[in-house]
Amino acid sequence: MAVYTHLGAEELAALIREYDVGALVSAKGIAEGVSNSNWLVETTGTDGTGARFILTMYERRIELAELPFFLGLLDHLAEKGCPVPRTIHDRDGQAYRMLGEKAVALIEFLPGVSLDHPEPAQARSVGAALAGIHLASSDFVSKRTNGLGPSGWRELADDCGETGLTQIDPTLPRLVEDELTFLMAHWPRDLPQSVIHADLFPDNVLMMGDQVGGLIDFYFACNDITAYDLAVTHTAWCFDTNGAYRPAIAAALIDGYCSIRPLSDEEYSALPVLARGACMRFLMTRAYDWLHTPADAMVTRKDPMDFAKRLLFYAEQGQQAFPLPAN
Amino acid sequence: MAVYTHLGAEELAALIREYDVGALVSAKGIAEGVSNSNWLVETTGTDGTGARFILTMYERRIELAELPFFLGLLDHLAEKGCPVPRTIHDRDGQAYRMLGEKAVALIEFLPGVSLDHPEPAQARSVGAALAGIHLASSDFVSKRTNGLGPSGWRELADDCGETGLTQIDPTLPRLVEDELTFLMAHWPRDLPQSVIHADLFPDNVLMMGDQVGGLIDFYFACNDITAYDLAVTHTAWCFDTNGAYRPAIAAALIDGYCSIRPLSDEEYSALPVLARGACMRFLMTRAYDWLHTPADAMVTRKDPMDFAKRLLFYAEQGQQAFPLPAN
Repeated sequence: MAVYTHLGAEELAALIREYDVGALVSAKGIAEGVSNSNWLVETTGTDGTGARFILTMYERRIELAELPFFLGLLDHLAEKGCPVPRTIHDRDGQAYRMLGEKAVALIEFLPGVSLDHPEPAQARSVGAALAGIHLASSDFVSKRTNGLGPSGWRELADDCGETGLTQIDPTLPRLVEDELTFLMAHWPRDLPQSVIHADLFPDNVLMMGDQVGGLIDFYFACNDITAYDLAVTHTAWCFDTNGAYRPAIAAALIDGYCSIRPLSDEEYSALPVLARGACMRFLMTRAYDWLHTPADAMVTRKDPMDFAKRLLFYAEQGQQAFPLPAN
Repeated sequence: MAVYTHLGAEELAALIREYDVGALVSAKGIAEGVSNSNWLVETTGTDGTGARFILTMYERRIELAELPFFLGLLDHLAEKGCPVPRTIHDRDGQAYRMLGEKAVALIEFLPGVSLDHPEPAQARSVGAALAGIHLASSDFVSKRTNGLGPSGWRELADDCGETGLTQIDPTLPRLVEDELTFLMAHWPRDLPQSVIHADLFPDNVLMMGDQVGGLIDFYFACNDITAYDLAVTHTAWCFDTNGAYRPAIAAALIDGYCSIRPLSDEEYSALPVLARGACMRFLMTRAYDWLHTPADAMVTRKDPMDFAKRLLFYAEQGQQAFPLPAN
């Protein structure tokens, strides 16, 4: 949650001149993004009435080779009418530019605010928007493997080691080992796949009242099991800030999703195991970050155990955590 | 450089409803402000065409009792046509509100960017804008003492202690002691006073080309020697990022200032000692922060020695650092 690189006004103005968006008016570093720096940039716009953009500088994690996938995906989805920000291309048609050794992209600014405590009508809209992305990406030709699938969880667990996991919580090594064994044995192999967002937390959804103003931060997007994305979103939206399950949100999320893309019986039955996998994914990346984030880092560490609790919840509740729409 | 407090969208929307500014559209935490949290907030505006504001939450340093001075000053100066942001008052006419135990204020958003490497024409505009504030504040009735004047520097030096100062640089204890003795003996007592900004670094000036779009961050403003503010601005603007003196910037800054408010002979002659005092002020606060900022703080510590070097420069150069306008 910081701006990692200082970008001088003069340098920024020169960068903006490479795009057909008018002249630089204002730029504020924004306190969002963990692996990149972001500025909310205002320009005079092409017609002088002003325009706003998010300028993203890619600091780490994201390989340059993957930017065409991420930025091309935004363009593809926006073209199909999904509420995602378009990439602004420079005067030479490039989706990103290099500023020194770092890549930067200028991205459409979308209105809306991220919710702390969504209401069911809002969760329904989010479910529908997620399904819309799954359908709209069906003819997107680029592919990206999910590096944070089952084999990625195993690697992260090995990297944390028993000592590291114990340091987080004494119960964690056993839980992780048992659960990884379970997930490897039960992970579905034949479900439909598509591009998935893979990280659709409330932070990454801009709401305008009950409507979705924008889905953002596609930097974990990849090709994987479509229903896994609904499971990720379920784990991310259906618990309040104290960790209590919110069944009305779950029902609305699934209802909204199925209104656009009905789930097959196989997909529906797989949701509990997919949700356990989603919890394992966030448990493992948080555990890794917890153990590897220096104490003086300008990043707030997130408690891995939140997702250990959700994992146990899904293991106990099974299909009950996924109320089917009434239709 | 961070947002210290999480402010949920629901809480923020409720807050915005207390003002006659339309409904909340968007809010981004911005990476500015050391002692407060700031959000760039967009609303529908009163006429539906949109409006932008900075929402500031006062986290520390600023006493609640002082907010009427700071916010009243902005209103006073804006009323007189100075390029400063107005305070937006709530529906009850209040300049700030309490959100839990913290005060928040909604402040006009001004366009412009902060410069890294100003040109003389820009420094001239800044000098003129500073003089404009000095004139416009002459009938502002509230008063605030400068807590960071000579006696404040002494207190900070004592608090850092010889051990602390040595830790920063072995030459520092001697330099500070000698200079404090010099400043106490030579600090001018009879120069004109007014409200001063007291912290007009390039960060706190929003430029639109050669024009000043806004002077911001008045949270060190106080009543003190008027020419001291020009000296502070001189120390803040007339050195490049490597610490090299930029005489053309100094000449333009003073020229711009005198075009609006000519300096008396006494004021002009006092500039070298006032500038040494300004360096002492930033040297001492930076030294204090250097020694008191925990290693894991989300704030970048600024090197105190930058201002030790500038202090020695002013001591050597004397009046030569302050080229008089030609006329």
